[in-house]
Amino acid sequence: MKKINPEDFRVTSEINLDEISTQFDLQVKKKQIKKALELKREELGEWQDKLYAHGKYAVLVCLQGIDTAGKDSLIREVFKDFNSRGVVVHSFKVPNSLELKHDYLWRHYIALPARGKFGVFNRTHYENVLVTRVHPEYLLNENLPGIEKVEDINDEFWEKRYEQIRDFEDHIAENGTIVFKFFLHISKEEQRQRLLRRLNKPNKNWKFSPGDLEERKLWKTYRKYYQEAINKTSTTKAPWYVIPSDSKPTARYLVAKILYDELIKYEDVKEPNLAPEIFRKLEEYIEELKKE
Amino acid sequence: MKKINPEDFRVTSEINLDEISTQFDLQVKKKQIKKALELKREELGEWQDKLYAHGKYAVLVCLQGIDTAGKDSLIREVFKDFNSRGVVVHSFKVPNSLELKHDYLWRHYIALPARGKFGVFNRTHYENVLVTRVHPEYLLNENLPGIEKVEDINDEFWEKRYEQIRDFEDHIAENGTIVFKFFLHISKEEQRQRLLRRLNKPNKNWKFSPGDLEERKLWKTYRKYYQEAINKTSTTKAPWYVIPSDSKPTARYLVAKILYDELIKYEDVKEPNLAPEIFRKLEEYIEELKKE
Repeated sequence: MKKINPEDFRVTSEINLDEISTQFDLQVKKKQIKKALELKREELGEWQDKLYAHGKYAVLVCLQGIDTAGKDSLIREVFKDFNSRGVVVHSFKVPNSLELKHDYLWRHYIALPARGKFGVFNRTHYENVLVTRVHPEYLLNENLPGIEKVEDINDEFWEKRYEQIRDFEDHIAENGTIVFKFFLHISKEEQRQRLLRRLNKPNKNWKFSPGDLEERKLWKTYRKYYQEAINKTSTTKAPWYVIPSDSKPTARYLVAKILYDELIKYEDVKEPNLAPEIFRKLEEYIEELKKE
Repeated sequence: MKKINPEDFRVTSEINLDEISTQFDLQVKKKQIKKALELKREELGEWQDKLYAHGKYAVLVCLQGIDTAGKDSLIREVFKDFNSRGVVVHSFKVPNSLELKHDYLWRHYIALPARGKFGVFNRTHYENVLVTRVHPEYLLNENLPGIEKVEDINDEFWEKRYEQIRDFEDHIAENGTIVFKFFLHISKEEQRQRLLRRLNKPNKNWKFSPGDLEERKLWKTYRKYYQEAINKTSTTKAPWYVIPSDSKPTARYLVAKILYDELIKYEDVKEPNLAPEIFRKLEEYIEELKKE
């Protein structure tokens, strides 16, 4: 199997999505990729147990990608061997009326993982510089002072949002949350095929809405703002990874592998030691229970 | 009555608390101060109704001050004429175990006021650079990576916290929250007298704990870190006001007056206009109801 280096997928300088392939050849058969994922997710699950016992870090996994990019099934496959206690998935939909009464980060802040846990955001706070950028009329729902009509929204406004997002992620990273941001990168043709499959499968077509085709027409606009958002917010503390995702098994393996390789760098994450005064008396405790 | 200018209390350059008097002469009798407060809080209550109808801004009032500075009674007196719907008070105590599992801003973020409302923080996120600074051993409860013992906490750590707090306040201000931060400034002698009164009144002494006297011994240390926090975080978007508070009626009036004078500058805050198509038909609706 091809050797994977997380750095090859991490965004550390300006990228152009058109120049990044949506395919990646792991140089083995699909079956072997699945086997490799199984091993990796087991290791991840074991590491999560340590994270829980250690109790100092949280892990935030942000997933973004155009419709059909494979976010839901990736979550199912990558976190399969976690103790459910250790991972909380939040799927962010259209903000509700309570959420709209607060700043756009509020609902995400509330949902942040506690120390010792993984939090997975299926769609994230980045929708606030993506869907609202492609459809600026949606932004009017946020009821922001000074924004009465679409024309009031200028480039400076979006620059400010990028800055707010960078500050937010810096803050949580500095306070113990390890942040990963994955962009599931698929081709327009791959989306066409996936939408067709979705429509043709009776138990899958509930996921389809005519709006999907409308959004597909805005492919280039979405692509442009994804690229801008990634370039503006990939930082050392909260890096973006662009994952070639035309093959779902490959994308899942890459995400699991990157997570694991990056997380085991936190060598301080381990079960805490028993206090020495307790450790010294372990034999006594055992005796006491035996005698009962 | 002496003319009050909010700017005289706002911190716009480095301050030295020892050089700011804890007394302020409004040049009228106590009774007149109370009367003036009554008028001001009525006006504030009416303005809050407009804020609610307008629904774009929130107002966050942060109150800090050493024990006995008068925070609780100030809240009672200043917000007395608000529709209860329009104001939410949060008193932040020692963080609980759930709160400690998140970054230190999390519990404050959750409690932020929704658009259209006033939020009052009785003690605030600033306790994270005050009480934990005076008692760094408390910080160990936050279980931060890299902070295993008090010696791991350095000046850089606190500088970072100030930066995180500035970023947080910038973000909420940029998204429609109007932020006020009041430091209730009392003298050490005034605290002594208030503690004595508290101890001598049977229905007040429940508020006393022997810890109060221990904290009082740290007066200078608290004072030093209050001053540093104020100097590091008084910004245009989220300014600090130092309120001379040896006289409670004076402090309450000053806070109400500053709030009001600053808030009415937001001239866009008013009841929204009826949509013209509804407005044109008002007579018809009236007729319809009359005929019923």
